[in-house]
Amino acid sequence: MKSVFYSRFFILLPWVLIVIIVIDIDTKRSSVRNTANFYLSRLGNAPRRDRVVGTSPAVNRTATPVIYAITPTYTRAVQKAELTRLANTFRQVPHFHWIVVEDSNTHTELVSRFLARAGVPHTHLHVFTPRRFKRAGMPRATEQRNGALGWLRAHRTSRDAGVVFFADDDNTYSLELFEEMRSTRRVSVWPVGLVGGRRYERPIVENGKVVGWYTGWRADRPFAIDMAGFAVNLKVVLENPRALFKRRGAKPGMQESDFLKQITTVEDLEPKAHNCTQVLVWHTRTEKVNLGSEPKRHLDSVFIEV
Amino acid sequence: MKSVFYSRFFILLPWVLIVIIVIDIDTKRSSVRNTANFYLSRLGNAPRRDRVVGTSPAVNRTATPVIYAITPTYTRAVQKAELTRLANTFRQVPHFHWIVVEDSNTHTELVSRFLARAGVPHTHLHVFTPRRFKRAGMPRATEQRNGALGWLRAHRTSRDAGVVFFADDDNTYSLELFEEMRSTRRVSVWPVGLVGGRRYERPIVENGKVVGWYTGWRADRPFAIDMAGFAVNLKVVLENPRALFKRRGAKPGMQESDFLKQITTVEDLEPKAHNCTQVLVWHTRTEKVNLGSEPKRHLDSVFIEV
Repeated sequence: MKSVFYSRFFILLPWVLIVIIVIDIDTKRSSVRNTANFYLSRLGNAPRRDRVVGTSPAVNRTATPVIYAITPTYTRAVQKAELTRLANTFRQVPHFHWIVVEDSNTHTELVSRFLARAGVPHTHLHVFTPRRFKRAGMPRATEQRNGALGWLRAHRTSRDAGVVFFADDDNTYSLELFEEMRSTRRVSVWPVGLVGGRRYERPIVENGKVVGWYTGWRADRPFAIDMAGFAVNLKVVLENPRALFKRRGAKPGMQESDFLKQITTVEDLEPKAHNCTQVLVWHTRTEKVNLGSEPKRHLDSVFIEV
Repeated sequence: MKSVFYSRFFILLPWVLIVIIVIDIDTKRSSVRNTANFYLSRLGNAPRRDRVVGTSPAVNRTATPVIYAITPTYTRAVQKAELTRLANTFRQVPHFHWIVVEDSNTHTELVSRFLARAGVPHTHLHVFTPRRFKRAGMPRATEQRNGALGWLRAHRTSRDAGVVFFADDDNTYSLELFEEMRSTRRVSVWPVGLVGGRRYERPIVENGKVVGWYTGWRADRPFAIDMAGFAVNLKVVLENPRALFKRRGAKPGMQESDFLKQITTVEDLEPKAHNCTQVLVWHTRTEKVNLGSEPKRHLDSVFIEV
């Protein structure tokens, strides 16, 4: 009796093992397929599937902080070109969420269509800047940045790990920049190229602390830093619900200082990019396009989006 | 006797199956790992391994044509920024080979270091433009483009499937553009945004043939097209070993026509991008940087590459 039991057991055991292994393989295969799709769709080559690229992104509660890049944008000839090269960069940043805020009364068709095909997880907002604020000497994109901060405060909680960065649409970003800023605990800073009338501006660091600013323009600013030169942990944005970019009394070039002094002090800044000795982002500016030969009336036989 | 044989067979069979399956899984896992590395290294996040990113790229004899993008470049404040965003785009194009040609007497350290870390298969060349050709009214980058054509003729044969494209370093490229040009049999053309004083220029197509040019500038040019608006099959470059960009008597804006009339006719052009109705590349231009506050002597305590 005992011998029959053992022989049955040993005949059944391997078959049970086979079934377990085969089930295990099937799970692995589908996860491999998902991984491949993930990269392919990020690379923009795969037929797009229903991924979390809509306007209601999944909440990420994992340990890796999501980088929330806030990009104000407005209608102009180079807009789609600028967004195209930005998306080409952002598509390669893992755990990334792009908050695109249009200066308009509505979602424009161009930006909506663009984002739907960009292959970058995103949220599409719009905030119109009143005409009285659109003058020379007035800081720009204030309403759009504040709109994005409002969205974060409404849709994210302290349980979401995240880092907030203001990514204007004409700058140039290296991929390394995003890995540097991802470890931001409170507020981090780094050099910015081609800004302030110099090859670069940077925080001066001694013993791991920011002690001053290397800049060619108004070194007396409390935080002599460009919008592209700092990132803020999402926690800090949520803990300071009234921290916003100032419209009243604000001067161009003081936006960064006005905002940062609401949430941090110079002593508490965390230097990134090898103690602020590497330029990983450049304040490039795109030339205004010459449209001198653009016909007054539509001459072409088709309408072409540019 | 027979029963003993069967029972042994049925006991051994499943164990043999288990061994086969386990070996199979191991092979799959390592291939999965390789796939992941491939994408990660393309995304520039993985520790770099010895990939074909050196100056002696592997010859590709497969069916998928390699896109050879020829980028002339020269030392200036925005150079590294421009190359950074170009690499961010090109990194996502499969079967791609970047031919970067510096206008200098030697490989500059900045470009060499940049290419070594860019994660894009490349060849690094340099050709110096004599000072007498560096004047307003003279076409630019002639020597560099010809240098790259010479390299292709010396290092590629008719057995290599390829498509040659002139990718200036300040333009903006969508990923779709490269998939459009990849099927170029002889010479293909498409619209270019923000050029010729208009929102876009494009070849006018009727019944699949180019019959004219929609342009705001010198519509009498034989090929009224920007450098970013065409691609040439590698075969055509090799079949016409003397086809080059003209230096003597050349005028700016006529470079494209001078080159194209050596290798094709308007009737033979292959329209891409939905019969030339989509803008997939933009002739963006980056503003010259204001370095008005750059100190005459080095003031910072460290040297920082920008």
